[in-house]
Amino acid sequence: MKIGIIGLGLIGGSLAWDLTRLGYEVIGVSRQLTTCNMALDRAIVSRATVNLDILAQTDLIFICTPIASIIPTLERLIKYLPPHVVITDVASVKGSIVPQATQLWSNFVGSHPMAGTANQGIEAVESDLFKNAPCVITPLENTPEKNIETVSKIWQEVGCKIYTSSPENHDRAVAWISHLPVMISANLINSCINHGNQEVVNLAKNLASSGFKDTSRVGGGNPELGLMMAQYNKAQLLNSLREYQQNLSSIIEDIEQEKWSMLEEILNKTQEERPNFLG
Amino acid sequence: MKIGIIGLGLIGGSLAWDLTRLGYEVIGVSRQLTTCNMALDRAIVSRATVNLDILAQTDLIFICTPIASIIPTLERLIKYLPPHVVITDVASVKGSIVPQATQLWSNFVGSHPMAGTANQGIEAVESDLFKNAPCVITPLENTPEKNIETVSKIWQEVGCKIYTSSPENHDRAVAWISHLPVMISANLINSCINHGNQEVVNLAKNLASSGFKDTSRVGGGNPELGLMMAQYNKAQLLNSLREYQQNLSSIIEDIEQEKWSMLEEILNKTQEERPNFLG
Repeated sequence: MKIGIIGLGLIGGSLAWDLTRLGYEVIGVSRQLTTCNMALDRAIVSRATVNLDILAQTDLIFICTPIASIIPTLERLIKYLPPHVVITDVASVKGSIVPQATQLWSNFVGSHPMAGTANQGIEAVESDLFKNAPCVITPLENTPEKNIETVSKIWQEVGCKIYTSSPENHDRAVAWISHLPVMISANLINSCINHGNQEVVNLAKNLASSGFKDTSRVGGGNPELGLMMAQYNKAQLLNSLREYQQNLSSIIEDIEQEKWSMLEEILNKTQEERPNFLG
Repeated sequence: MKIGIIGLGLIGGSLAWDLTRLGYEVIGVSRQLTTCNMALDRAIVSRATVNLDILAQTDLIFICTPIASIIPTLERLIKYLPPHVVITDVASVKGSIVPQATQLWSNFVGSHPMAGTANQGIEAVESDLFKNAPCVITPLENTPEKNIETVSKIWQEVGCKIYTSSPENHDRAVAWISHLPVMISANLINSCINHGNQEVVNLAKNLASSGFKDTSRVGGGNPELGLMMAQYNKAQLLNSLREYQQNLSSIIEDIEQEKWSMLEEILNKTQEERPNFLG
């Protein structure tokens, strides 16, 4: 099986490298000639080019571009392809991609490998990046079973643990555990620095320790990533934010009215339940 | 100078040990005879007893009991003391302690060393626990300067970096960087588990990774500690929660109305400002 990979950044490049080492013939496509040359120098791919038409000879193509480029890339790509080629993507949101992509190409299957580091670009490429990472496959009702199997098998070969979900439930789940945490964490920092009493803000900066450090980490991360989450997962993020806010109101009310047993019950439950989110 | 320490748990015991090793004569008081014996066995203190009256011969006393016991302990203690003895405490909230304690004993000065581990009790005692930890001294307007100096000097000797603040501003600052993070972090776990769609909750549990892990850490911690924060720092925690909620509403509105440049501005600022909280 020949595999095409479009976009040789952290995700695309690391996937290409793992698949090359597994013995697949991997053809890489990047907009940048320097990236193609670097991928060839490091033996990440068998061949690399800036032209999409080379992918006509592949059986399976991974689109690993930034989210905003996935649909435009797919539109340009499919002109060159015979109809049997299976295409997938690696975007962290699925509802705004999968239905549209499937309409353009019936052999499209969405996937989302949940791996990454703080670094970007081909310089950041790592082997075994996907080892033990969850990967969600997000078929629609009419997605052919054999395409789901083809895509799942490749992700399993590079070490992923496979989950299957509708695009919508995928987006709901990542809103809860990935996109909502960024917003509430950013709002913590934002609220601290905007507090009116500057003496208190300065003291807070001096006293902050590991609790603040951990709770604020994802909110102090890459702003482009946070913005992208809100733009591409708007509906599900808003649902989570609204539920979160309603629950916070109820905690505020418990504290106002000194319903200590209610608060204690919540805190007992959160202590008990947190390990269930940590594998 | 003879030093008395009431409560030989993690904080009191670790302080006693450091001061004993610095050459001070340290007298420990615990309600438990077994704790006294353990403190003597491990040479944490010079003398240890269950009776408060022994502290009549000391010059400076640290009350290191749980918050709820500080005022009752002080009330029993002062019957035995000559008036020149300086008393301090180590509670993590000051507004509900310092004015009342000062009324009972004019040579009282509040302090809050911000050190600790996940463990409790005399078994958890560590040397150098306070090295490089911030310690806030919280005098009132009429607190004698020499008492502030006496207490500050001891905390400096065990390695603390000293800050001075009113009890009220101390409680505001710790509400922002310690107590608010616990509540918003707990509310993240609470909201995830209470989401109505069980398929989404199960997927979320499987997909949660380092971002969720860090953001949920303090909210999944010791429930008694979280409850204590709400009970003893109620007013300032509520102020922080209300400001936080108002700011979150504004973020929700930005996302609803797709004011992406507003959201981007917030996320740029939180990325830029977070390092100022990390020393």
